[in-house]
Amino acid sequence: MKKTFWMIAIALLLAGQGVVAQSKVYDNLSLPSKILKSDRKFAIYLPPNYEASQRSYPVLYLLHGAGDDQTGWVQFGEVQHIADKAFAEGKATPMIIVMPDANTGQRGYANDPKNEWRYEDFFFQELMPYIEKNYRTKPEKRFRAVAGLSMGGGGTFTYALRRPELFSSACPLSAATGPMNLEMTKATLKRAKPEVEYTDAEVEAYYKRQSVLELINAVPDDKKKAVRWYIDCGDDDFLYEGNSLVHIAMKKKEIPHEFRIHDGGHTWTYWRRALPEVLGFISDAFHQY
Amino acid sequence: MKKTFWMIAIALLLAGQGVVAQSKVYDNLSLPSKILKSDRKFAIYLPPNYEASQRSYPVLYLLHGAGDDQTGWVQFGEVQHIADKAFAEGKATPMIIVMPDANTGQRGYANDPKNEWRYEDFFFQELMPYIEKNYRTKPEKRFRAVAGLSMGGGGTFTYALRRPELFSSACPLSAATGPMNLEMTKATLKRAKPEVEYTDAEVEAYYKRQSVLELINAVPDDKKKAVRWYIDCGDDDFLYEGNSLVHIAMKKKEIPHEFRIHDGGHTWTYWRRALPEVLGFISDAFHQY
Amino acid sequence: MKKTFWMIAIALLLAGQGVVAQSKVYDNLSLPSKILKSDRKFAIYLPPNYEASQRSYPVLYLLHGAGDDQTGWVQFGEVQHIADKAFAEGKATPMIIVMPDANTGQRGYANDPKNEWRYEDFFFQELMPYIEKNYRTKPEKRFRAVAGLSMGGGGTFTYALRRPELFSSACPLSAATGPMNLEMTKATLKRAKPEVEYTDAEVEAYYKRQSVLELINAVPDDKKKAVRWYIDCGDDDFLYEGNSLVHIAMKKKEIPHEFRIHDGGHTWTYWRRALPEVLGFISDAFHQY
Amino acid sequence: MKKTFWMIAIALLLAGQGVVAQSKVYDNLSLPSKILKSDRKFAIYLPPNYEASQRSYPVLYLLHGAGDDQTGWVQFGEVQHIADKAFAEGKATPMIIVMPDANTGQRGYANDPKNEWRYEDFFFQELMPYIEKNYRTKPEKRFRAVAGLSMGGGGTFTYALRRPELFSSACPLSAATGPMNLEMTKATLKRAKPEVEYTDAEVEAYYKRQSVLELINAVPDDKKKAVRWYIDCGDDDFLYEGNSLVHIAMKKKEIPHEFRIHDGGHTWTYWRRALPEVLGFISDAFHQY
Repeated sequence: MKKTFWMIAIALLLAGQGVVAQSKVYDNLSLPSKILKSDRKFAIYLPPNYEASQRSYPVLYLLHGAGDDQTGWVQFGEVQHIADKAFAEGKATPMIIVMPDANTGQRGYANDPKNEWRYEDFFFQELMPYIEKNYRTKPEKRFRAVAGLSMGGGGTFTYALRRPELFSSACPLSAATGPMNLEMTKATLKRAKPEVEYTDAEVEAYYKRQSVLELINAVPDDKKKAVRWYIDCGDDDFLYEGNSLVHIAMKKKEIPHEFRIHDGGHTWTYWRRALPEVLGFISDAFHQY
Repeated sequence: MKKTFWMIAIALLLAGQGVVAQSKVYDNLSLPSKILKSDRKFAIYLPPNYEASQRSYPVLYLLHGAGDDQTGWVQFGEVQHIADKAFAEGKATPMIIVMPDANTGQRGYANDPKNEWRYEDFFFQELMPYIEKNYRTKPEKRFRAVAGLSMGGGGTFTYALRRPELFSSACPLSAATGPMNLEMTKATLKRAKPEVEYTDAEVEAYYKRQSVLELINAVPDDKKKAVRWYIDCGDDDFLYEGNSLVHIAMKKKEIPHEFRIHDGGHTWTYWRRALPEVLGFISDAFHQY
Repeated sequence: MKKTFWMIAIALLLAGQGVVAQSKVYDNLSLPSKILKSDRKFAIYLPPNYEASQRSYPVLYLLHGAGDDQTGWVQFGEVQHIADKAFAEGKATPMIIVMPDANTGQRGYANDPKNEWRYEDFFFQELMPYIEKNYRTKPEKRFRAVAGLSMGGGGTFTYALRRPELFSSACPLSAATGPMNLEMTKATLKRAKPEVEYTDAEVEAYYKRQSVLELINAVPDDKKKAVRWYIDCGDDDFLYEGNSLVHIAMKKKEIPHEFRIHDGGHTWTYWRRALPEVLGFISDAFHQY
Repeated sequence: MKKTFWMIAIALLLAGQGVVAQSKVYDNLSLPSKILKSDRKFAIYLPPNYEASQRSYPVLYLLHGAGDDQTGWVQFGEVQHIADKAFAEGKATPMIIVMPDANTGQRGYANDPKNEWRYEDFFFQELMPYIEKNYRTKPEKRFRAVAGLSMGGGGTFTYALRRPELFSSACPLSAATGPMNLEMTKATLKRAKPEVEYTDAEVEAYYKRQSVLELINAVPDDKKKAVRWYIDCGDDDFLYEGNSLVHIAMKKKEIPHEFRIHDGGHTWTYWRRALPEVLGFISDAFHQY
């Protein structure tokens, strides 16, 4: 009886004080996808006080690279420790961070050229609505951002360049900037699925959707300032050329963008160093001056 | 013995979790208002340990500016992070912070000239009693303060100048100081509601209630020291004239007041910098020397 | 003999190491003035390394207040300690600081209405050329600044408003802003020299030369940005009105200026706090971005 | 006994003065040049204890940009404060810093196409020997570095790419990377001296000497690692294209190089931030591991 009393006392105490008000990370959640005909996994970071409070939060979609999955930013990226610290120090403002799996079934953030695997459609038509329905997010563009590394940096580029109405900030890190031309597009598709034949029209359409340089050149004048860009790629990264050319192309096109080259290569050490800056940069849109 | 076991268990549990009863913010609460004939939203900040403790707290009413609502100080003002930090560092003493919505329905903190929309009456007759009934506030003047920015700085001025018996401290930031004369009053009312006609008496009464300079000149001798004032307006703020004239008028009238002009404009950056000073200043009244 | 040996050794050692490379202050120098028909005193601060190096330096003219003389900023203002610290911390860039006596003979920085005592002429025609000839100053406007407190704040205003071609920065602290109108001008002149009669034309000319508000209103459009202004006056200063009106007048006239009101009165505590900010502000002109 | 007295006297004197043999800067020295048929100015930074010690030092040639002269790094670049601090904190090792004037007579660090103005020859045949004869420098490649900004970044590139036997480190900041092709070369020469006619051979030879991309492509295999490179150019710099292409070209050519893009433009603020990193980077060659 005394035991029961004390257990209840503990429970009340903890509940009453909002004791477990620390941030939380779940890395094995899932949602059903009709588009991808399967359950899809995602990880989520909920900021300190998320459950105790009733306020709503901005949301960052944070994309992993090739060979990784929804657990990458959690395990290797130390997202919880880094976000907790950035929020506690006031360098960024609390937000929800969503990390979807783009590895299972087929790798990548794109719809394939034949629209048989439509990951991008899943992202916009199923994942985003699911998050905004099931978590207390602020559902306006201003309070939504996208970031990612390597293949996820490519996803960040293509999503925000083609859907500037959805994201206030986009932060590609060490980004794969897509095929440089039609030949490279063909070769890439061939390597991914040797058994599939694509028409020239399919290849060209895919190239135009996935080449970051093509997408930059296609930005209409009235959308040049639609997204706040923060682009970062180490000086020892093998993706130096695409990122340098993106910097030149955006300059010539007069698309405002922050661009950084720090010391380092294509490594988690680089991305963990970059993450607090990314969180701070996107908070500047969530904030108001 | 079992009791001892559980006491130790609790102690270990709390120690192990690094228990901190964190502050909480709710940004979507509401109360029913007969005066405004609708539910009215408000946000509230409850200090660390609020729920675990049984003590009562001072309360600050913190007013948002035009175009914002009860979430402004939460999202853009970083009230939770800033208040937590100020309390943790001992620069201010824990208090409850109430942030009501003055945007929905009709914008502003005033009763309109025809007393059809009576926000001020709602504030004093419904909101304050609701807060003091439903939260553990100290219901004396000494432990009650009001602050706000821009339009909310105007609300701070008018509320505290006309109700000096209710607030020990008042802190208008980058305040709108109301109409300068009757013509400006007419023009402002016209712009807000072109379809309404006001009598000269209505305009004049409204002017006398909303002009901060008029209210200062009307302060009776025995009320000059009734409220502690902290007034702050950036040197790049477009509201420079009203605030400079308030400084001169209060000096000539010998109303004690702290006055600050820092570097900056009409921005959240300015108000986030000011907030810790405001919390510290009003705490000096909650304290005892 | 041994004594001689060691004296030489010390001398060589000190000379060779540039050991006495600390900053120096002389507070009792003088130059001959034909205009004022007497020797005039001044104090000077020479930055660390001044003598050892052969480089040239920017120069700040730093004016004392009424009742003080060239030793004021040295003794009460702690100019050496404060400047040394600001330069060592990199908050300001090394400069020469000249502090002339405007107390002896007749008080103030102006020519009198009858041009019998011509301190302003002495300043520009004798003091400045003397300094630039005898010290390694950079003799361009860009590298010349003026600052001062109270009466010296008034001198700062009048000198820089009427000679914008000479100063890149001007920093009046707790400034006397001159007479508000002709009556006040007459009264001031009467109080200073009861025995002298002035014609109306003399009074008006003097008023137009010494009233800061008049001088601001007379600034031609192409000179509005000729001088960088940093104006600071405490919220408890008795000179609150003139300084607040200067802020309003410069805003309306669209003359860019930094304006600050900190906590404090007409005290050396206030000016010692302000001095590092002044040194930093004027260094921004000596620097290049 | 007298000896003892004087030894104590010295000790007290030195202790009392807080003796630090400070660094020195001279910004108005000159050397005679037969090649340029005139005296040429230079500034020099001598590290703390230079004169007291008898040791020799590494030397950095630090080049100014277009429109500036030998005083630029002293006044705007704060070379003394920044170098003192870097050495005191152990982030770099003491060195002599030489800043020659490349503005007087004709602007730039190159020989002109007709070899009538031979600044580069002056630099290598007169300035460097003069410095190494008159100051205690270590005259080996290992202890010699070159750095510079804008036009001086171009000088850094061309000098170190063509004379890799002379410099262990080269640090071009916000560098002008020279003409992109023959047409641009012709246009640049025309703009500088409209009255002079150049033969095609002269233009091509000049282009190959001044185009950084051409020089990179011409680096022989056995010289790829001859110089340690630290290249830095802000993301808002108008020289973004040349520097980004240099990064790509050096990568493809497998020339090891540190490359940085920080936040900022073509400003002294950027270069003052970069200078400590430059001093640290070149010190790594002066050091031994």
